[in-house]
Amino acid sequence: MSHTVHEKQKLINRVRRLRGQAEGLERMLEEEKGCGEVMHAIAGMRGAISGLMGEVIEDHILMHLADANLTQAERDEGAAELIDVLRTYLK
Amino acid sequence: MSHTVHEKQKLINRVRRLRGQAEGLERMLEEEKGCGEVMHAIAGMRGAISGLMGEVIEDHILMHLADANLTQAERDEGAAELIDVLRTYLK
Amino acid sequence: MSHTVHEKQKLINRVRRLRGQAEGLERMLEEEKGCGEVMHAIAGMRGAISGLMGEVIEDHILMHLADANLTQAERDEGAAELIDVLRTYLK
Amino acid sequence: MSHTVHEKQKLINRVRRLRGQAEGLERMLEEEKGCGEVMHAIAGMRGAISGLMGEVIEDHILMHLADANLTQAERDEGAAELIDVLRTYLK
Repeated sequence: MSHTVHEKQKLINRVRRLRGQAEGLERMLEEEKGCGEVMHAIAGMRGAISGLMGEVIEDHILMHLADANLTQAERDEGAAELIDVLRTYLK
Repeated sequence: MSHTVHEKQKLINRVRRLRGQAEGLERMLEEEKGCGEVMHAIAGMRGAISGLMGEVIEDHILMHLADANLTQAERDEGAAELIDVLRTYLK
Repeated sequence: MSHTVHEKQKLINRVRRLRGQAEGLERMLEEEKGCGEVMHAIAGMRGAISGLMGEVIEDHILMHLADANLTQAERDEGAAELIDVLRTYLK
Repeated sequence: MSHTVHEKQKLINRVRRLRGQAEGLERMLEEEKGCGEVMHAIAGMRGAISGLMGEVIEDHILMHLADANLTQAERDEGAAELIDVLRTYLK
């Protein structure tokens, strides 16, 4: 992903927060926290993943499909990649 | 959607099946079928909607983003529409 | 589903709205409405299905799992049905 | 969560794999891997989260709703917790 430095850092920060959520969840399980708390933590992680995916897909659309400087071959590849991932992800 | 006639008919057939599923579900509720059966019917409808959405998004990517004959303005609009709907849909 | 009459009618009303949404979507496709509009209509239907499923699952939990008058066999069956549907639905 | 030791360890192992996936994704972003690869990695994480949630919910249903030794107050609390988390999660 040839993101701008700023965009790249934003995505990395999101992934670090996700890793932190996974670490927190592991501690909750070790400490045998209540099911309700554990389920809410997992729901929070899924929300974070959905947000991350939304951001990456948005970047992909702008950089690999809509950008005026793409060749048609690049654009076709960008389309194929997006269709491929959405087939898995939208199920 | 300026679909080919063939593609348009495929989408309409999918939507008719969905309507049929809704009618079947209404009958199941009227006849007080068991919860398990009702829940599976609803899960089936959600699967049908996801399949329909996947197909429409795929058409959109090919016709309004990747097509070589689009103007840049049309392509920008295609990108904006897709990003907008995915923001709602990927939550 | 041995719902109260009131609850049953609420679910039927939801399903009728869903059928109306499917009919509206079919008209949109026949009239070749724009992709953006069509995608938002499908997203709206998915939201309606999720809301319906949430309501049916909630009823199921209260009536077939938590209710004080259930036999253990009924409760075990209620648990098995819910686990079964969530395995499909939470994917 | 008063899981059996075996069940607890299974959940912890799943969460560790998730943390590993987050670490791998962070490296992919640092190394500017292609969008397609990044999107598939994120889709894989979402699948792992859904699997984890499914397992925790299943445990919750069996231990806090269906178990024959629960008091009615415990069962009511188990129902309320599950309904609460599904309201967020099934959207």
